[in-house]
Amino acid sequence: MDDLLETGRRILAQQPFSVLLGAELLRFSKEMVELRVPIRDEHRQQNGFAHGGVVSYAADNALTYAGASALGLAVVTSEYKINYVRPAIGDSIIARATVVYGGKSQAVCRCDVFVVKDGREAMCATAQGTITRIGDAPTDR
Amino acid sequence: MDDLLETGRRILAQQPFSVLLGAELLRFSKEMVELRVPIRDEHRQQNGFAHGGVVSYAADNALTYAGASALGLAVVTSEYKINYVRPAIGDSIIARATVVYGGKSQAVCRCDVFVVKDGREAMCATAQGTITRIGDAPTDR
Amino acid sequence: MDDLLETGRRILAQQPFSVLLGAELLRFSKEMVELRVPIRDEHRQQNGFAHGGVVSYAADNALTYAGASALGLAVVTSEYKINYVRPAIGDSIIARATVVYGGKSQAVCRCDVFVVKDGREAMCATAQGTITRIGDAPTDR
Amino acid sequence: MDDLLETGRRILAQQPFSVLLGAELLRFSKEMVELRVPIRDEHRQQNGFAHGGVVSYAADNALTYAGASALGLAVVTSEYKINYVRPAIGDSIIARATVVYGGKSQAVCRCDVFVVKDGREAMCATAQGTITRIGDAPTDR
Repeated sequence: MDDLLETGRRILAQQPFSVLLGAELLRFSKEMVELRVPIRDEHRQQNGFAHGGVVSYAADNALTYAGASALGLAVVTSEYKINYVRPAIGDSIIARATVVYGGKSQAVCRCDVFVVKDGREAMCATAQGTITRIGDAPTDR
Repeated sequence: MDDLLETGRRILAQQPFSVLLGAELLRFSKEMVELRVPIRDEHRQQNGFAHGGVVSYAADNALTYAGASALGLAVVTSEYKINYVRPAIGDSIIARATVVYGGKSQAVCRCDVFVVKDGREAMCATAQGTITRIGDAPTDR
Repeated sequence: MDDLLETGRRILAQQPFSVLLGAELLRFSKEMVELRVPIRDEHRQQNGFAHGGVVSYAADNALTYAGASALGLAVVTSEYKINYVRPAIGDSIIARATVVYGGKSQAVCRCDVFVVKDGREAMCATAQGTITRIGDAPTDR
Repeated sequence: MDDLLETGRRILAQQPFSVLLGAELLRFSKEMVELRVPIRDEHRQQNGFAHGGVVSYAADNALTYAGASALGLAVVTSEYKINYVRPAIGDSIIARATVVYGGKSQAVCRCDVFVVKDGREAMCATAQGTITRIGDAPTDR
């Protein structure tokens, strides 16, 4: 396993919320971030779909990793926007994020989120956001 | 307790993910939705803040309830945008959402999210999104 | 007229695109920015409404001024999101923007846009965005 | 010239604001929408860049056309989000939009906006939004 993926997984393991959700980092490179979250019973809303909060978590975290691939590991998501396009009915969620624009202190990234059911993927959401180096973030003040 | 709040709490109790996070509906009226999420150890990221996914969950769900106050209970969040403005360091998160524009099948809502520490509130995020009646949602197709 | 409004108007007069659209700065203070754009025939789209681009211009520029009220005059809009809620049918557009969160190098601002017809206002759009000090902007690299 | 492009150009010619800005539709198919706007002196802001309002116009309109390629010509942009990533310094702006998800009444689309200078393109903004069929739009009420 390459070093960057190993580092990314170590950070994910240090996020109690990611551990709670069972998230797993599948890829972490400058080309692509891939994060998987199982859809367990406790991840659902009242209709049996994965809750929007789980889908948002996956998008947000994958965006942060994408930004980290461009800016270094000390980053936060400053803002993002997500469109839900299909109910997340299935076994797991896979969020795939890439860097659209990487600057010195901020990166603009995109993330497509897929729901996997019986091995087949369907897009359930798509997101776009800004990732900022810590030290340059609004939240550092 | 009024009927609407009671109904809202019943729905929240039917969302396993909301139960997992310990979310509690404090207010649910046409004027204001208020949702509280405790910041437990398992809600944090590696720096000790509440994870962005928890803050997003609170915003998303409060937006949905605000939309429901205008459109009826069968609604979904179609899309939203969130700006994180301050690390969520504290004991709990309170998301307050209101309707900006209510139409026939969609409502545009806003949500301010506060972190509460030692009884004092500070804004940690703000969101804006579209809530759609089920039957009119893109995801119904 | 107070100094800040005067300064703001001078800057607006230096923006050829704002002059082309006939934009006028009505208020510019830490509490409220108010920008008016007349709806002329050349501002319309094929249905006779003001074009979304005119509404977006008003929101974007009002957001920038709101950010400037918090951060100083050397700012740019880094990103924003806008929901159109009603066709802009009328005589003019008024965009009102306020600061939701002001940090050291970035501010998160909101803007409600109204269409005015026969002296009556109706909301036609609402926006939320990030304004960044030049020197701290992604676009400065 | 194919029929769809011809139809698209006819609609653009019926938008006085698009005529005012000198916008030109280069491509209009299910695969790609391409809209060009010249950067004239009256399109600039005080620093000599194309005004954000011009960039937003291009993104918004290209998104609408992309939605129209999926949903039919009677559509409006319901909402979008845009990140500016680089000052638009150059001779013209090209907005390229595609459909990410096309449903029955709504489509989620993306748009990258490039500034062209001496024949070379550089991304200056990226956007994501929802396009809605008229009759299904919030603004139809």
